[in-house]
Amino acid sequence: MIPDTAQRHRQTVHVTEVGLRDGLQAERRLLPASEKIALIGKLIDAGVKDFELTSFVSSKAVPQMADAAEIFSAFKERGDLLLSALVPNEHGAERAVEAGADAMVVFMSASESHNLKNVNRSREVSLRSFETVAEIAKVHGVALHGAISTAFGCPFEGEVPVAEVLKIAETYAAIGVTRLSLGDTTGMATPSLVIERIRALKTAVPDMEIALHFHNTRGVGLVCAWTGLAEGISRFEASVGGLGGCPFVPEASGNIATEDLVYLLEESGYDTGIDLCKLSDAALLAERFVGHTLPGQIMKAGPRLRTWPLEAARTANG
Amino acid sequence: MIPDTAQRHRQTVHVTEVGLRDGLQAERRLLPASEKIALIGKLIDAGVKDFELTSFVSSKAVPQMADAAEIFSAFKERGDLLLSALVPNEHGAERAVEAGADAMVVFMSASESHNLKNVNRSREVSLRSFETVAEIAKVHGVALHGAISTAFGCPFEGEVPVAEVLKIAETYAAIGVTRLSLGDTTGMATPSLVIERIRALKTAVPDMEIALHFHNTRGVGLVCAWTGLAEGISRFEASVGGLGGCPFVPEASGNIATEDLVYLLEESGYDTGIDLCKLSDAALLAERFVGHTLPGQIMKAGPRLRTWPLEAARTANG
Repeated sequence: MIPDTAQRHRQTVHVTEVGLRDGLQAERRLLPASEKIALIGKLIDAGVKDFELTSFVSSKAVPQMADAAEIFSAFKERGDLLLSALVPNEHGAERAVEAGADAMVVFMSASESHNLKNVNRSREVSLRSFETVAEIAKVHGVALHGAISTAFGCPFEGEVPVAEVLKIAETYAAIGVTRLSLGDTTGMATPSLVIERIRALKTAVPDMEIALHFHNTRGVGLVCAWTGLAEGISRFEASVGGLGGCPFVPEASGNIATEDLVYLLEESGYDTGIDLCKLSDAALLAERFVGHTLPGQIMKAGPRLRTWPLEAARTANG
Repeated sequence: MIPDTAQRHRQTVHVTEVGLRDGLQAERRLLPASEKIALIGKLIDAGVKDFELTSFVSSKAVPQMADAAEIFSAFKERGDLLLSALVPNEHGAERAVEAGADAMVVFMSASESHNLKNVNRSREVSLRSFETVAEIAKVHGVALHGAISTAFGCPFEGEVPVAEVLKIAETYAAIGVTRLSLGDTTGMATPSLVIERIRALKTAVPDMEIALHFHNTRGVGLVCAWTGLAEGISRFEASVGGLGGCPFVPEASGNIATEDLVYLLEESGYDTGIDLCKLSDAALLAERFVGHTLPGQIMKAGPRLRTWPLEAARTANG
């Protein structure tokens, strides 16, 4: 159903900013920690409260994330934020605890070949290793989140059966994951698949909070988010400015842009708690830092009711 | 409501290609007629049947459209196509008849200042002048279509009351317009506005075919199309590759890309009669002709089930 904005006026929708992790990870230029901290500061000023801030992976594998502990140390005293980090294994989990993360995120792919490619392990080995991570999280009172990559399709295998997603979700639930993120790694989600997967997950893991993480690689990222919203989902992951990209097609888009998502939500009567203009400023700062144009639209066009003097236009019989 | 793809399997959705007119009009490089004809040929090969092909405006005002008659003459014998052209006035209507157009499109803005800026007339004068155009169309058995620019908001005035849209639609109906296109000139449409305007129009002009023409200037063009679809609209205008742009913000997007729309529709169980791969090839040709990157996503990422060898990926914990 199309959300009835009259009925749902000011219903809250939660936005998790993943630009610092999923976005920057795809960038060639290594941003110094000072720039990341400045960008996060601007995002916090705009009202963003929930961040996937970095990942505690090998800095040899992902040099962009080598400053993970430093980034955390700048913000961990902020009790009003929820700061999470990706952890690939036990060692990462220990580093996340030490850094003061509020949540650690285990992650794996729904398709075998993508998991092998991404973390060099079978899905079975990934799942087993999360038990230790879960134990560490529990002992230290850190929340445990779980992400599923290639949840709507795999760039190596094609279709990913919903059963594969459910299997992982059920194991996540069993080890204490409280928030599940469905990752549309290479932009293969469609409205039909979104509906199918959400409905199946609501039955299989009814107590799990579900977050949706769409990429705009094929232009329909916000349509998928809109579909998820109509299915009752109220948490979405997005990347400021659309930071990030596609690992296969350099010129294609990656994550949906946080400000475009916030624009859609706020214009549809939902409350994100985020100031669109300040968020767009953050997107422009991100663009300056990475040194190339980002795909976000609102950061270019401005808010809906931005008006122009009559002299401003080129001819446009739109 | 989200369209139930099981129920609506293979319901037809009509796509009108406006790239040759609305798209190219915004381009600096003047394409020779031979390139336009080659592009149209590729689009026809892909299955596109409905074109807003050009406009019969002053070639001084819009040099890109100076070859309007030549373009028509290349395709007017094709009885399986519907070829329309924008006509600003009586003289344009006569040229359209002479060129062999199947339909002529009168156009005006829902907001006074945009109409003044665009065609240098008040809305009242525009509406009056269409009566003569309608007469010419009737005499020659040419279909009459009507477009309303700034139908969801005006870049000079901001909000555009739905009543302004209805007033024009009713006059269009009275003079014999059979297809009405709602133009989202600078990307100010939102799902709520789409629902409001469609429902009001269905009551005010129940016999009128309604087409939706969205721009992706603020990233939500396809969400608006999706919303229109759920409201029962089955005709959408789009521009191959996303040709075109925003008259105020050069770096912002214009029309939604035809191939991204077709991708969304076909993946959702609708039948557009268009071959996505051939359409993407047409978009790549358009990109070559205009000489700069176009905003379409499918033309870069490829179809949904495009797969890659394991070696192709950069690291991507998406």
